Amino acid sequence: MESHIFFDTAKMELRLLDQRLLPDREEVFVCRNYKDVIEALRTMVVRGAPAIGVTGAWGCVLALNELSGDENWRQSLHKALAAIATARPTAVNLRWAVNRMHSLIPGNSAVPADIIPIWLEEAKAIQDEDIRICRQIGYVGSVLIQDGDTVLTHCNAGSLATAGYGTALGVIRAAVAEGKNVKVIADETRPFFQGARLTAFELKKDDIPVTVACDNACALLMQRNMVQLVITGADRVAANGDTANKIGTFAVAILARYFHIPFYIACPLSTIDPTLAHGGLIPIEQRPSREVEEYGERRICPQDVPVYNFAFDVTPAHLIDGIITEAGILRPPYAESIAGVLARTQL
Amino acid sequence: MESHIFFDTAKMELRLLDQRLLPDREEVFVCRNYKDVIEALRTMVVRGAPAIGVTGAWGCVLALNELSGDENWRQSLHKALAAIATARPTAVNLRWAVNRMHSLIPGNSAVPADIIPIWLEEAKAIQDEDIRICRQIGYVGSVLIQDGDTVLTHCNAGSLATAGYGTALGVIRAAVAEGKNVKVIADETRPFFQGARLTAFELKKDDIPVTVACDNACALLMQRNMVQLVITGADRVAANGDTANKIGTFAVAILARYFHIPFYIACPLSTIDPTLAHGGLIPIEQRPSREVEEYGERRICPQDVPVYNFAFDVTPAHLIDGIITEAGILRPPYAESIAGVLARTQL
Repeated sequence: MESHIFFDTAKMELRLLDQRLLPDREEVFVCRNYKDVIEALRTMVVRGAPAIGVTGAWGCVLALNELSGDENWRQSLHKALAAIATARPTAVNLRWAVNRMHSLIPGNSAVPADIIPIWLEEAKAIQDEDIRICRQIGYVGSVLIQDGDTVLTHCNAGSLATAGYGTALGVIRAAVAEGKNVKVIADETRPFFQGARLTAFELKKDDIPVTVACDNACALLMQRNMVQLVITGADRVAANGDTANKIGTFAVAILARYFHIPFYIACPLSTIDPTLAHGGLIPIEQRPSREVEEYGERRICPQDVPVYNFAFDVTPAHLIDGIITEAGILRPPYAESIAGVLARTQL
Repeated sequence: MESHIFFDTAKMELRLLDQRLLPDREEVFVCRNYKDVIEALRTMVVRGAPAIGVTGAWGCVLALNELSGDENWRQSLHKALAAIATARPTAVNLRWAVNRMHSLIPGNSAVPADIIPIWLEEAKAIQDEDIRICRQIGYVGSVLIQDGDTVLTHCNAGSLATAGYGTALGVIRAAVAEGKNVKVIADETRPFFQGARLTAFELKKDDIPVTVACDNACALLMQRNMVQLVITGADRVAANGDTANKIGTFAVAILARYFHIPFYIACPLSTIDPTLAHGGLIPIEQRPSREVEEYGERRICPQDVPVYNFAFDVTPAHLIDGIITEAGILRPPYAESIAGVLARTQL
């Protein structure tokens, strides 16, 4: 497998490394139709805002392919694309990628056979671009990391959350590539353990020193000067810089401010949603309670006790020292810097 | 079983509800000698500062009983008591209880057979007192809870952490007994899940509405006005009010201050250690990494990735709005209020 997201054009199937099983088992989840893709997104076979954007693009290809024999294919495709775009609500990259595919449907006379090669190319472009953008984010952000720093990150904003290289972990990888000694503390990130399972897994593979800590150890680690910098990914950035990311990010940002530790977000521009004025408008997914209640075969909570399972929270812009993008590090006031960068890059 | 800590004087054995297995199974862990007690303490069959104090007292009885035939019983007993007192380092109640038992060894002519009945009585007194003290803490603290409040608590400072009734949960129980509608949010409390497993278990048994949340959801819940008050227990309070409690408490206190939510500690006076000027002097236990790395049969972290497993952190006094004790609610400046209450109660 070339990447953890691999589209086989001969078989017309999308092969995803099943992130639910890491680090114990490396197994592939095969999507042969767009409903498989929706299931993979919903159940978090693949997760991470840029990665679900790429996956969504390939889902569009599968939808077009399987609906191409349908007489009302345009109508069915429209429904399928809407279903893919809303498989998960918080990360804007999914909608962004589906919209980008959708915008490439040619005029009314086109038939699916005309469109499939165009979409195959576009999905591949989205995937390839994502890796290039991550490398650029890494290059841009690596100046923030000093030799000898320990960087704390929350959740997984690495290769597994993107087409490759990562956003927050891309910045760390770039600093390491520049010869800096960098250590990472990975918050374990309950309930899905993206930090303990995925960030630790991929950094270990890259021989970047990583130590896992429970989310609730953050204050102690910061108090003991064990953290010099925080960098996390993002699922959606509002026009004013308020940033939705994995549940717990908001707390880390408050703690970082309390301990005077710089707190940065790393994300591609496609994660910015200029249509939302502020973070209060970002939809926050609530996921099945069983993710909190049990792990493996074993229950954690007693039967019939309710749980909260908000999957994201929104860190207010005033707690964010900078947003590292492929077009530079955005600084407060974000309403201006975000509008500026979008105006420049979308010309 | 009368209580989760039950000493059978006929069999001279200590029976502990095995808290490692809750909420799935209610099984008893039997201690027939003091080394069993040390194992129960170390592996957290029983945990919670007041509960490990009571357990330690019974451990002293078992040590005396089994060493009574030993020619050098005084020397062996001294060693055994030291081992019990240091089975866990952070909670001061363990040392406090063992010292209290130790102070009751009569003059040099006494033989074990003389002392055993005295120690049986004293251990029982410590246990009975603890329940009375918890009820008093509850009575004292319940004024802080308004009808309709939701109280967030971290870890388990309930019946299972004491001889019964609880400290933080004792305050909640007292408010409920006064007819107030009180809801509880239990932080799940990684890695041992005392909140999800134990607090949820005992509040559900009492029909007090409880919802479990991952530790990292705290900021979101506070931001949404879902928490009116925080009350936690304590493992050791320094002379200046700095308070060691379960890892994560410090973060909750910082978040509570950020959101202007009152943050209270509830503990017996026996948890105060006036010999330590400030919290930086409290020893912080580091526990086995496997508690973080796996749950049940399933691994969470990849093999050979290091983890941090600090079991406690220290919340600085300035973040604590009050310390609820059996002798009243202590208020800042704590150096004065703590010295005052200890002078009054130890006369």
